[in-house]
Amino acid sequence: MNSQLRINGDRLWQRLNEIAKIGATALGGCNRQALTDEDKQGRDLFIGWCKAAGCSVRVDEIGNIFVRRAGRSDSLPCVMTGSHLDTQPTGGKYDGVYGVLAGLEVLETLNDHNIETTNPLEVVVWTNEEGARFDMAMMGSAVWAGQMRLEDAYELADREGITVRDELARHGYIGEHPAKPHAVKAVFETHIEQGPVLEAANQVIGIVTGVQNMSRYRVVIHGTETHAGPAPMAMRHDPVMALASILPALYKMAERHGPDSRLTVGYLSASPGSSNTVPGEVELTVDIRHPQEQIYASMLDEFRAIVDDSCQARGLHVPVDCFFESPGVTFDAGCVEAVSESVSSLGYTADRIVSGAGHDACNVAAVAPTSMIFIPCEEGISHNELENIEASHSEAGANVLLLAMLKMAS
Amino acid sequence: MNSQLRINGDRLWQRLNEIAKIGATALGGCNRQALTDEDKQGRDLFIGWCKAAGCSVRVDEIGNIFVRRAGRSDSLPCVMTGSHLDTQPTGGKYDGVYGVLAGLEVLETLNDHNIETTNPLEVVVWTNEEGARFDMAMMGSAVWAGQMRLEDAYELADREGITVRDELARHGYIGEHPAKPHAVKAVFETHIEQGPVLEAANQVIGIVTGVQNMSRYRVVIHGTETHAGPAPMAMRHDPVMALASILPALYKMAERHGPDSRLTVGYLSASPGSSNTVPGEVELTVDIRHPQEQIYASMLDEFRAIVDDSCQARGLHVPVDCFFESPGVTFDAGCVEAVSESVSSLGYTADRIVSGAGHDACNVAAVAPTSMIFIPCEEGISHNELENIEASHSEAGANVLLLAMLKMAS
Repeated sequence: MNSQLRINGDRLWQRLNEIAKIGATALGGCNRQALTDEDKQGRDLFIGWCKAAGCSVRVDEIGNIFVRRAGRSDSLPCVMTGSHLDTQPTGGKYDGVYGVLAGLEVLETLNDHNIETTNPLEVVVWTNEEGARFDMAMMGSAVWAGQMRLEDAYELADREGITVRDELARHGYIGEHPAKPHAVKAVFETHIEQGPVLEAANQVIGIVTGVQNMSRYRVVIHGTETHAGPAPMAMRHDPVMALASILPALYKMAERHGPDSRLTVGYLSASPGSSNTVPGEVELTVDIRHPQEQIYASMLDEFRAIVDDSCQARGLHVPVDCFFESPGVTFDAGCVEAVSESVSSLGYTADRIVSGAGHDACNVAAVAPTSMIFIPCEEGISHNELENIEASHSEAGANVLLLAMLKMAS
Repeated sequence: MNSQLRINGDRLWQRLNEIAKIGATALGGCNRQALTDEDKQGRDLFIGWCKAAGCSVRVDEIGNIFVRRAGRSDSLPCVMTGSHLDTQPTGGKYDGVYGVLAGLEVLETLNDHNIETTNPLEVVVWTNEEGARFDMAMMGSAVWAGQMRLEDAYELADREGITVRDELARHGYIGEHPAKPHAVKAVFETHIEQGPVLEAANQVIGIVTGVQNMSRYRVVIHGTETHAGPAPMAMRHDPVMALASILPALYKMAERHGPDSRLTVGYLSASPGSSNTVPGEVELTVDIRHPQEQIYASMLDEFRAIVDDSCQARGLHVPVDCFFESPGVTFDAGCVEAVSESVSSLGYTADRIVSGAGHDACNVAAVAPTSMIFIPCEEGISHNELENIEASHSEAGANVLLLAMLKMAS
């Protein structure tokens, strides 16, 4: 019977547009950075909707909001969904907020049809996912999942020295409930893809199986500064000539490891940077990602070998420094399967996909069975006021969430 | 008889060391930037030596100093040598000043041996060769040779707004003589190589046959900024991936055109320069040099084709802008031959060499038969306080100059 159930796509779309008025930007995006007045307005509006829907609301010590619809056996572990309401300074209307409102839409739909679930359902709003104002992405979920100390989060300050604790207190969002895991049976986070894969493949749903392993390296190639005229090419210690053999080897290596590989040289600079001087130094960053642990490990080994070989051949000294590392996440097979079955029964086109970006679900996955549901976003553009999605995709994602939660909570 | 004549290497070396005390720097170099008090002190010291040697001295409107030792037929065109006394801010003790004092040493040697030449001999000090304080390298020789207007040179200002005219006047170096070519039979400029070629080949003398053609280009590769995670490599418009095919192709092209080719990527920068963002733009400069006109022209064509092909394949837009061009110089065959014969009769090891850097001789060559004589400098290091040469090489270069000038002036 429940497999015929559908959410109300218009209500969801209207609410997405209504909350987008808070912190609306000139180019059609949103600026509701964490714990600003705008973020508080968004939270208050959301809580109002939840209370009107008959849900109970509790807030924990780091300001995470848990909205609960009681289950038939209310002491059983809950089935949870949610995401975040905060945005980048020039963010879009859907990143985060879609996952929160899709969750509320599931609860509303069950109310509309007087459907009782066995397990209680919860919709969560995690505090400061973006890390734009307070420089710690996925902060609220990290504290809740025990991956960051509450005191450390409280002391994070914005550029004006105002702390997370100051702002939580000012807005009345330091809750009484401890910020630590409670009994959770399964967690689903719906989110826009923030990449171009689903749109390009003309798929409505991404069944997210995990999050990439990723790390970032700073490579400094020390050569010898020389006049661009007199020194023959063969007598130079030119770090750009080393770069010329490193770069194609890196991209070939990434290609060899298949379409899930990611290799990005985001920072690249030669110094002293004079057009008629052979540079004395080249600095670059290399960001490497792959969902599979073993392939990822091979990529890291091969990356170091490529740099070493290219530079040793030229007698250049090259320190390689890892400055960021984030292990990959493999989502819970049962949760992924629940999403997959929901997609099948709804008849949507879908691909299995690995998230290239981090989400609150990464932290949550450490303490509870978790997976994610992606919907396409236009041209993969996100963290941008021009971020856009189709209403039909918003509806489809929420329908998948509905059936997956029902399956877990029945 | 004259072929047995030798200059006084000790006197030359002592004078190099004495003038180096003016503007001496902590690391053993010199700071005598054009038309500073130190440059004036250096000029005055040099003129004192010349007058003591019985020479006449005249100064032209742009401060170029011409020291003359009369010839038997003094109305004949002179045989000229010389270079510059000004230095870079952290310059060495030999760049320029060696060519001036080697010239004076030739005159002193002829005095010592009471040798009269048919043609008069002149030693010139060109004003502001370095272009460090007033941003126009080889200024004095350019004005003299008619390649720069006197008024334009006068109006050049340093960072504090002080002009060339101000400083020439303050130091009493605006001469009465017009800054334009007089009758010159031949010109030789001795100079340190400022590159590593002679030292590496263990040669004492470089017989300089010309100066490279050179030009510089700014290349801007416009791509699309993207998150480093979600976007598959094949769907990116990554300008660094285009760079990865451009760079090795450029260096291979330079190698294919032989050991006289020079290709330097001196400036290189990706923006926005965030380690987890695919850059939206890469900017680089390419400096291309070759002594032979035809090969040089091929290099420029191939450079543009490499950039176009690499970028068009990725759908990237790439403007290429030439912002500096300096045609090559082929020195006078008679002057080159005079140097070559002098080297042979002196028994020094020597290589024919093309200058990778510009010199006053490039301007002079436009109006008079000209060539250059190089001596090695340690590790090719120049424009640097650590610049160093061997006293025996200083002596050898001046001996070659002596015989070449005598040959032309007899």
